[in-house]
Amino acid sequence: MEYNLFIKEWKNKTEQINSKLSDYFLKECGPQSMVLSAVNYSLAAGGKRLRPLFLLESNLLCGGSGIDDELVFSFAAALEMIHTYSLVHDDLPAMDNDKYRRGKLTTHARYGEAMGILAGDALLNLAFETVSAALSRQKETTKLLAGVRAFSILAEKAGVNGMIGGQVIDIEMTGAKNTPIETLNTMYDLKTGALLEAAFGIGGVLAGATEETVLALFKMAKKVGLAFQIQDDILDCTSSMEVLGKPVHSDEKNEKITYMNWYSVAQAKKIVESLSKEARDLLALTMEHGGFVGNPGFLDLLIEALIDRKF
Amino acid sequence: MEYNLFIKEWKNKTEQINSKLSDYFLKECGPQSMVLSAVNYSLAAGGKRLRPLFLLESNLLCGGSGIDDELVFSFAAALEMIHTYSLVHDDLPAMDNDKYRRGKLTTHARYGEAMGILAGDALLNLAFETVSAALSRQKETTKLLAGVRAFSILAEKAGVNGMIGGQVIDIEMTGAKNTPIETLNTMYDLKTGALLEAAFGIGGVLAGATEETVLALFKMAKKVGLAFQIQDDILDCTSSMEVLGKPVHSDEKNEKITYMNWYSVAQAKKIVESLSKEARDLLALTMEHGGFVGNPGFLDLLIEALIDRKF
Repeated sequence: MEYNLFIKEWKNKTEQINSKLSDYFLKECGPQSMVLSAVNYSLAAGGKRLRPLFLLESNLLCGGSGIDDELVFSFAAALEMIHTYSLVHDDLPAMDNDKYRRGKLTTHARYGEAMGILAGDALLNLAFETVSAALSRQKETTKLLAGVRAFSILAEKAGVNGMIGGQVIDIEMTGAKNTPIETLNTMYDLKTGALLEAAFGIGGVLAGATEETVLALFKMAKKVGLAFQIQDDILDCTSSMEVLGKPVHSDEKNEKITYMNWYSVAQAKKIVESLSKEARDLLALTMEHGGFVGNPGFLDLLIEALIDRKF
Repeated sequence: MEYNLFIKEWKNKTEQINSKLSDYFLKECGPQSMVLSAVNYSLAAGGKRLRPLFLLESNLLCGGSGIDDELVFSFAAALEMIHTYSLVHDDLPAMDNDKYRRGKLTTHARYGEAMGILAGDALLNLAFETVSAALSRQKETTKLLAGVRAFSILAEKAGVNGMIGGQVIDIEMTGAKNTPIETLNTMYDLKTGALLEAAFGIGGVLAGATEETVLALFKMAKKVGLAFQIQDDILDCTSSMEVLGKPVHSDEKNEKITYMNWYSVAQAKKIVESLSKEARDLLALTMEHGGFVGNPGFLDLLIEALIDRKF
């Protein structure tokens, strides 16, 4: 695929996700309107929608219908809701105390702290409401079983042995200067890697992929997640508020331990490149072994493009 | 059933729930140990375990196996996890700012504010992990369909049109002296009634109850929930910290709108009694119509006993 064409397709796919995601926004009525507004505000704040994108691509690659399958998209939406709630809670005064994200006021800065907590709770819960509503409409046993498996991957990867666990290690590591790099890696695997594993894995499971293929997808996701997170460390050092949409040098200010505590920018970039290559090699290998039936071109370029991302 | 026997059975059933619930406590290991400890601390803090109890009783009443059915108990545990997370977040400084509950330090007072937020998130997520793990082990289509229905009731009743919605109205009503009583009723229906509806409804659904019976269960739950919440208002006025395990007169201190803004203690007690009677009449009526197959004696006495509860 030509690079310009890929960029155009990336933009298209993201717009499709955004458009479909807006169907899941809440109807603001009743005396609890404020939380509905805060939930919609948080979800609409944008971002790259990478988790839904990866889920849908993985699903297509394994022979699923991607965005056109209601059950598949409900999981894509749920992942974005979980990702969004984690940002909303992460930004709270008792956590990272961030006032801006994606160039806009954070949820608690806009709606107050209590509503920030409740909007986050609502988003996490909404993820499971969304998935359960779509699951309830499945009558075919095969789809039902795949959906339940996907539900359990989603719940597990978002939990204490997944994303929340990573968040906890993040808080505990803050300011702890002699943290070993292994703990940092575990933190990144959980905080970022776990939801990407959910994205890749659920995409496969809902397309009926074999256990072997699902394992390969998990592995690929882990590498992409770590590369992504290290790239985040690099951007916090080298970018600007205008490009990034949030304050830079926040890691240093917040005494966060990052890859920059061990490596130079050039060295860290090399690590990102090599993780990214490993993920793409795994993609090619699984393709060769017949694990995938769709065209891997877009996903391959997407993983590559994330290395050079500026935001 | 004789009253003393009932009290003994109530105690027995609660102990059985506590014992089985402890199987769901988290194994504290890994660098995220602190959140696991905070989750276990919150879950172990006790309480009446009413939601699991109602779920199991409703299940028995509709012909299910109650506590012996793994899927049924997973939902009972999930309800208690969701109830517990709501208390943990409710107690946070940005919300009610309570330092004691059930005679013990609240989670954030014991583990710090960031860990209070994350432990609450973890508990909500754990509820769905628990349910999804049990659902994954069901292979029979009938059980799977009932389980998915129960999952969707759980998610809906815990969400913005259920418990979280009630919590939001609670925050927004605080100090708003000319709130109409209808808004207070809506708040109680959502904040307390919704999870009781989930308890009664899920118990029925997992036993294969008819749609009509499930509706009767929802109705009953709503009345029990409102009665329970008004009793809470009364106890906050009339009890002591020693008996209640948390500070009394906290509603007044926190400028909460309660039934006491409209009614005397004696009037409020009458309302609780009449709601309780309506719930018991509904129980008797559904029994007559053949909606229930089990013995309603225990549940009937339980609803009655809650009127006179001292804690």
